[in-house]
Amino acid sequence: MYDGIVQELIDEFGRLPGIGPKSAQRIAFHILQTQNFDVSRLAELLAEVREKVRFCEVCGNITEEQRCSICRDPRRDATLICVVEEPKDVVAIERTRQFRGLYHVLGGAISPIDGVGPDDLSIPHLMQRLGSGEVREVIIATDPNLEGEATAAYLSRLLTSIEVPVSRLASGLPVGGDLEFADEVTLGRAFEGRQQLR
Amino acid sequence: MYDGIVQELIDEFGRLPGIGPKSAQRIAFHILQTQNFDVSRLAELLAEVREKVRFCEVCGNITEEQRCSICRDPRRDATLICVVEEPKDVVAIERTRQFRGLYHVLGGAISPIDGVGPDDLSIPHLMQRLGSGEVREVIIATDPNLEGEATAAYLSRLLTSIEVPVSRLASGLPVGGDLEFADEVTLGRAFEGRQQLR
Repeated sequence: MYDGIVQELIDEFGRLPGIGPKSAQRIAFHILQTQNFDVSRLAELLAEVREKVRFCEVCGNITEEQRCSICRDPRRDATLICVVEEPKDVVAIERTRQFRGLYHVLGGAISPIDGVGPDDLSIPHLMQRLGSGEVREVIIATDPNLEGEATAAYLSRLLTSIEVPVSRLASGLPVGGDLEFADEVTLGRAFEGRQQLR
Repeated sequence: MYDGIVQELIDEFGRLPGIGPKSAQRIAFHILQTQNFDVSRLAELLAEVREKVRFCEVCGNITEEQRCSICRDPRRDATLICVVEEPKDVVAIERTRQFRGLYHVLGGAISPIDGVGPDDLSIPHLMQRLGSGEVREVIIATDPNLEGEATAAYLSRLLTSIEVPVSRLASGLPVGGDLEFADEVTLGRAFEGRQQLR
């Protein structure tokens, strides 16, 4: 609908996840009309990001070095590994400030519908890390959905061969939530996982 | 939260309208992980768009030439001018295929709260265009909100000096909508603007 380059820009933005045609148009006009929006910086970053960013050779988290900042940090407890699906899960857990071990980023979850099997994830690499004998505990922190649960179940079976405690993050009522709005599966899990008070 | 450049990219995307921190993160990871997303094309477009795109010297619509494609089109009726706020309004009206005249893009609407007065819009330029005597009808198509209505009222007063019919787009019930869900102002307008059937 627009002349040349503006329409191309709208189309490119429209290809990004969560951006529909209307939002793409709004963003393109914002870039055109807002003088203090640093368009060249965004262009530079886009050009650089693919070539500079890679995956940590130890845990699979994103980094610009060979090893990510967490794996490089000598204060982290290397005997504890938390297994997550994606680099953004690392960030979410770091925000809690409760975990001082290392991570292992699988790069997704087992999902037969999407054609993702155990071999498409960095599970062999995880087994290799655990094989070194340094690790004393594994915490599985995959998403509490169908794919995440399937991945957790697969891993827990696989890890029976290794003599370390393996745990899974608790499912239950979200803190600050309202009991009446919890779905039945979550509420059922909260019952199953109830903790003794006295 | 992320190492260097990834966080910078997330921050830049987060500065665009309608993109919160979570969406910005999702977009950044999409760009990192999707091999077939043409990141260099988006970078190129961003670098080019500000320098190539300008405003049509006649109507104020966006274009890469001196005049936009509508003003250049000899089949358009130059005696009819439709006044809109933004270039995207031109696109919306073009989509109806009902208007064959030219446009005049004001570049916004009168809004005292945002410090936008008549002189900040291309109203003097509009008066100049109308002064040439070629124009036989003006249709005011500013938004049906507070600022758009104020701009329409201001323009209709200003245009009393020029002897051409001036009209405003009809307000009323949206087609395909449900009467019971219409707000009272819209419903009131629909009554005021009711049309004789027989």
